[in-house]
Formats: sequence, C-alpha cells, structure tokens
Amino acid sequence: MAGRLEPTTSARAGEVVRLPPGSRDILPEEAAELRTITDALTSLFMESGYGEVRTPALEYTDVLARGILGDVAPSYRLVDDRGAWLELRSDMTVPLARVAATRYPGHDGPLRFWYTETAYRPVPALQGRSRELLQSGVELFGVEGAEGDAEVLALTARALERTGLPGARLVVGDARLSETILAGAGVDADTIAAAHHALVNGDHVLLERLLAGAGVPADRARELAATLRTRGGADILTTHADQLGEPGHELAATIARVPSAQRERIIVDLGLVRDLGYYSGLVFQVLDPAVGEPIGGGGRYDELVGRFGDARPAVGFALAIDSVHRAQAAKGTTR
Amino acid sequence: MAGRLEPTTSARAGEVVRLPPGSRDILPEEAAELRTITDALTSLFMESGYGEVRTPALEYTDVLARGILGDVAPSYRLVDDRGAWLELRSDMTVPLARVAATRYPGHDGPLRFWYTETAYRPVPALQGRSRELLQSGVELFGVEGAEGDAEVLALTARALERTGLPGARLVVGDARLSETILAGAGVDADTIAAAHHALVNGDHVLLERLLAGAGVPADRARELAATLRTRGGADILTTHADQLGEPGHELAATIARVPSAQRERIIVDLGLVRDLGYYSGLVFQVLDPAVGEPIGGGGRYDELVGRFGDARPAVGFALAIDSVHRAQAAKGTTR
Repeated sequence: MAGRLEPTTSARAGEVVRLPPGSRDILPEEAAELRTITDALTSLFMESGYGEVRTPALEYTDVLARGILGDVAPSYRLVDDRGAWLELRSDMTVPLARVAATRYPGHDGPLRFWYTETAYRPVPALQGRSRELLQSGVELFGVEGAEGDAEVLALTARALERTGLPGARLVVGDARLSETILAGAGVDADTIAAAHHALVNGDHVLLERLLAGAGVPADRARELAATLRTRGGADILTTHADQLGEPGHELAATIARVPSAQRERIIVDLGLVRDLGYYSGLVFQVLDPAVGEPIGGGGRYDELVGRFGDARPAVGFALAIDSVHRAQAAKGTTR
Repeated sequence: MAGRLEPTTSARAGEVVRLPPGSRDILPEEAAELRTITDALTSLFMESGYGEVRTPALEYTDVLARGILGDVAPSYRLVDDRGAWLELRSDMTVPLARVAATRYPGHDGPLRFWYTETAYRPVPALQGRSRELLQSGVELFGVEGAEGDAEVLALTARALERTGLPGARLVVGDARLSETILAGAGVDADTIAAAHHALVNGDHVLLERLLAGAGVPADRARELAATLRTRGGADILTTHADQLGEPGHELAATIARVPSAQRERIIVDLGLVRDLGYYSGLVFQVLDPAVGEPIGGGGRYDELVGRFGDARPAVGFALAIDSVHRAQAAKGTTR
C-alpha cells in the first residue's frame, strides 16, 4: 500500500511540495491493484449488456443544477474565459441522466450505461475523506420498478463476487418507507422532514425527541424509532407489512426477483435513507465489515431524467474503488 | 462515430442543455473503440516494464508552477475552501516529474511510469479543440541521453504498431538544434529566441525576416531557413554535421540505437521545436497523414525533475487517444 495522504518533502531547501488535503498520488503497486478491480467490473458490466459512457469532468453549473432535488452538494466551481460558471462533477448519476435525456430523446427501449470515472468533492481538511473519488457503476434507464431494481441489486451483488468481497452486504430500503411509517402514525410533514435529516445522520436519539416534540406519546415514539432501526431478512417486510404500505410491497417484490445466490447478500433496513435528494424508491448501501463507511450504494431516481428532457425511470449503483480496495486489503483477499 | 461537439436540445420548453465548447459526451460505441486503444497501450506499457501512476487532477497552483520552464500554459484555476489556489493539470509530465522527485527521493535505478489520464486545457471557443484531453503515455526517469531517448522512441513506434497506424511517423529533432545552427552562423541570442517562436508557429517567412533584420545577408538567411525546414532520413544529420554540433551527434546516436523495425518510422526535422518550455534535448511529434495536427509527441526534459527535488534525467511521450482514434477511423483500421 503506497501513496498515502501525507504531504511529502522535497530535497530543495526544505520547501514542501504538497498535495491538497484528501488527494494523493497512486504509485504502481497500488495502481495495479486498483486496475484489477476496475478491469473485473468492466468485464462484468460488458457481459451484462452495459455500454461505457464518458462525460466531461467540467460542466455548466446551471446545467448540473437541474439535477439538484434536495440539498446542494458542495462542488468545485470556476468561471471560464467567457464568464460562465463551470463545475467539476460531484457524481456521475446527474451527468448520465443528462446523457439519457439529451442524447437519446424518444428512445424506447432500456439504456444500460456503465462508467469508471472520478467525481470531485470538496471535503473539509483533516477528515481523511477523498476529494477525488474514483467510482465504477451503472445506470439503467427505462426499466420501471421491481424489474429494474432487481437487475441492479443482482448486478451489485455480482460486482462484489467479482471483486472478492464475500462479507460485503447490500443494506436495502426504500426512500419512501420512513415517510410511510411516520405518516401512518399521524406524524406531520414538517416533523417527517426533520426526522429524515436525523435518519441521514443516524441520530436516533434526535429522532425520538422530534417525534415526542410532535405530540407522539413517548412509548409510541420509542416504538417508531425502533421500527426505523429494524434490519433483517426480507421477512421483516412481511411482519411490518401493515406499516409499510405500497413501498414495502414493492421492495418485497424486488427482493423476490433477485436470484437466490445474490439475494443472500441483501439485508433490509426499514429506516434507510440516503443524503442524495434524487432517490425516489429503492435505496441501498454496500457495507463491508472491514471498512467503516459504505463502500458503494445506489437506488432509483425516477424524477431526475425529466429535469433534462423526456422523463424516464432510472436506477443505478456505484462502488468507490478505493473503498473496495481497502476492504480487499483488510481481509487479505486482494486478487 | 457518436458524441460530437454540437450542443443538444432538451425536450423541456426549448431550453438548451449545453456542454462547454470543446467538451463532449462519449457514447458506448465510441467509448468501446477508445477503450480498445487504451487497453492495447496498457498491455504494451506493462510488457515493457512500466508501472501505472495516477495523480490528482487538482493540484496547488504554486506547486505546478515549479514546472513552468517557459511560457505559462493556460489552465483552469479555482480557490479552495481555505483560500489556496488550485489548478486542473494541463499535462501529465509535470505531475509525474513531481512524483519522481518527491516519492522516490534518492532512488538510484530508472523509474518507468505510464498513465492514461485526462489533461484540462481552456481553449478558445469555435476552434474545435478539446478542453479535456485523454492521453496515454510514459515517463522514463534516470536514463540519460541516447539510451533513454532510444527506448522511448522505440516504445512510441511500438504504440503506433499496437494501435494499427502503419502510416504514422515520428518527426524527430532536438530542442537545441535550431540554436546551434543559428548561433553557429553568428546570429545573436535575442534573434535566436524570436526565431524559436517563429519555428513553434511554423512561420518560415517571419524567420527569414528576423534573420535578415539581425544583419544576416539575404541569401544566407534563406539558406539557414531552408536548413531549419530540412526533413529527411538520419543521413541529413551527417550531411549537415558541421552545423549541428553535439546535439546532431547525439540525435544520430539515438536513432542508431532504435531497432530497425521501429527506426523506419523516424523522420528527422532539423528545425523541430515544441511549445513546452521544459524540453532540453530530444523532441518529437507523432504525425499521421489522416489527421491534420500531431496525434502525440514527447521529448527529453532533464531540467524539470530538479524543480521538485533531486534532479534526474527524464524523457517521455504521450498519445492523444481521441486523435489516434480519428487516425484509425480515417483509414478504416479501427481494430
């Protein structure tokens, strides 16, 4: 493992040749290991009928801003030679939604795209997070509901097989579940929105306090918070069916469609939410016991493509290559 | 051939979803062809003992500025969250020189690095040039003179074999040749510098005028300009030996070391100069009859690494993947 985050010193009069915090050089030994991962994913995606798409790293800010369906993600912005604002892409889903809408207008069948590209995210110093995030992933356009969701979940699971991560799991939920659960318990919309933020931050203490503040009796608030913490097999969708409504039915149908070898990696999380605002249905994170944060994730974003042209359903996932590498290294399964 | 430069329109109320001029999306058919090219180069570089290096796209401007040994290239700059200037790399040679100096201080043997990365160059609108330039190339550190130069020239020629460009040629010179020729004819240093700029722009009319203005008799000025336009086999280094001094001897020795199968692609150009200021010896361009501008190039830059740490000799080349693809497409040799 070479190429860590420390600034390195030059031999010139003690001056320091630094890299921006959160970015680093990748030297040959590590680069070869990362390339083994991306090559394995490339093969899988191509075998699975996906075609590679590349987009510019720099796009107009007002174009990318159409993809904002929630909080604005921090991004690197600059002014070009003609006074227009440009921005370094902070994810690949928004540019690929733009491609689907503008390059394939009126296209009938499904579109299957894959990419291995870098996304750029300004991060506070000293947090150890990466500013330049190499990701491999897919976006599937034009396939609705359980059919598209199951295809992407199964492909994610196969990606974990190919990269040699037997312990990695897909923690799966639906962006509408927490709202369904809370609205069904009579919680008002403002509290639901605040609860959503608490769930993004995993703050269940705040969640209970919010519910109590909204007039929910304390033991009922504790019960709801417990439901939103519930993780387990697909059977919890049955046992909680009366609280989960249509999103619960759809998620159960999706999981049933995933081939059993891949389904074994799936864990249902009734309170899973993701911080990207464009998710409209299925959401999931890829967790590996060797890495302290998600190594990937994805979900359905049926409202996004229409921001750039003809609307169409969409679902996708991405793996952070560096995180996959750390997961491999931690269990000594680097292949 | 998909993914051209035209802005595309969205279906939404006639609003246009544009990309910045000079950038574009690459759709699956073309992306697969580009990947065939980069895969072929990856295999060649790895067989040849080179190791992949990746560097951040964004670096501190004051670090990259150490690599400026001539005119400042235009670049995309922005201010980070702590008020420091960052810049998107405009080539890969400067970052890899930084890596050699700072990550391998005191390293004795040669270092052989390859990369496939994007460089970012602000370009005036309407010129049809790319803002985001995908390049594959190598840098060889620690091997001096003819030995290192011949290795890189032979590798460049093999890269053209692997990518199926039988008509592509290496037009080879030495950054010191024009100065040697002009100084040997008694031309002063200021005029030599101005003549260098005229050669970069291929302006031989201006060149003759500059020489005449510096007091060189008209027929002698015409003769010198003709010498600086001379292209041919390695034999022109012998026929002009009295004007070419040590750089001419070195270039002849370099070419003699290139295996004959690769040597056949080499054309000597006595007046070849490149616009990057860091070249200190060998310079070359890769030309293909199907493409109107160089599809690649390289050279020796022995003064650059010392700007970041311990000095060491260095030579490298890069191919512009998009240009290689255009050359293939024009002759129908896409493989």
